[in-house]
Amino acid sequence: MARTIGSDGGKTEAAIRMAAAGLVARHGFEAVTMRQLASEVGVQAAALYRYFPTKQDLLFKLMSRHMEELLSSWDDAANRHADQPDDRLAAFVEHHIRFHLERRETTHVSNLELRSLSPEQLSPILGLRARYEAELRAILQKGSDVGCFAIEDTALTTMAIIQMITGVIVWYRPQDRLSVDQLIAHYRIMTLRLVGAAHDHTD
Amino acid sequence: MARTIGSDGGKTEAAIRMAAAGLVARHGFEAVTMRQLASEVGVQAAALYRYFPTKQDLLFKLMSRHMEELLSSWDDAANRHADQPDDRLAAFVEHHIRFHLERRETTHVSNLELRSLSPEQLSPILGLRARYEAELRAILQKGSDVGCFAIEDTALTTMAIIQMITGVIVWYRPQDRLSVDQLIAHYRIMTLRLVGAAHDHTD
Repeated sequence: MARTIGSDGGKTEAAIRMAAAGLVARHGFEAVTMRQLASEVGVQAAALYRYFPTKQDLLFKLMSRHMEELLSSWDDAANRHADQPDDRLAAFVEHHIRFHLERRETTHVSNLELRSLSPEQLSPILGLRARYEAELRAILQKGSDVGCFAIEDTALTTMAIIQMITGVIVWYRPQDRLSVDQLIAHYRIMTLRLVGAAHDHTD
Repeated sequence: MARTIGSDGGKTEAAIRMAAAGLVARHGFEAVTMRQLASEVGVQAAALYRYFPTKQDLLFKLMSRHMEELLSSWDDAANRHADQPDDRLAAFVEHHIRFHLERRETTHVSNLELRSLSPEQLSPILGLRARYEAELRAILQKGSDVGCFAIEDTALTTMAIIQMITGVIVWYRPQDRLSVDQLIAHYRIMTLRLVGAAHDHTD
């Protein structure tokens, strides 16, 4: 019986990406070699180069895929929520924290290895990031326009919120005293207060 | 005339640390070699090893000194401010942002290279970080106790604020449309709102 090359290839590629995310998150991109990666995945180095001609390609794929998944996952989540700015902002915070906690390793790589990208690679990654930030900025802007939020500077508040909620993965551990749900509930409240949401969401 | 060895040595050590912070911030700790560093400072590699026996020592010194300076600089700033929790919190935000914007490179190294420390080196650095976080936590706790802030979880709010205000150095550039003073003014307002400060600080 013929093997489904496409499907096996997809699995191998995914396995390589997963192993690479783990190694790069632990040791840093510069320190990881293709040989080390091949041994981690259990393939020959030659097989690795078939999927990712250079280590640099691999890093770019990891980071672009992470951002594309983030955008499409938020797109799905956003469609399930009403259009009220406060609900939408709370949904954004929840989605962001869950998404990143479920992908700690690619999140670390995405946050720590921008400097390892070539200028040609950096530009599309920053483009994807800007698209994601624009999603939050639009929520804040709409909330301001309808008088639901009191925000002095929408662009700056966008960055402040993204940094605050991304920071969760730096210190939060699943065995912490707070569950992920409790954690998210607190961050939703803090974020709504930060934007001066008209209604009190502390209950 | 005898040369003041101590003073020259101090200057050389500081020059090495400064060059190292720049190189490590740009390329990552793993990628930087002692040879590269010596050539950047303009000394022989042997001279480098006299001050820092290993590359690992150098990283540790960079990071511990950064945290010690942060703690003592905040200590000075705190003494200049009244004891009201809201004033103190505003002062903390201002000091944190100014300190880190003035030390972008060691800040990047401190944030990105924790994984490059040995376990024996990591522990004292985390200790210094905990001491700093405790400073902010004490302000939040006092503000809650006297009814000046409305905070659900002091420990979590401490981490949220630190991540938010540290994030500034990731995206802010001095040539931005906002001056550092304007930037700080916005972050003070957002932080005070985030903790539910009783008074309105938006004016």
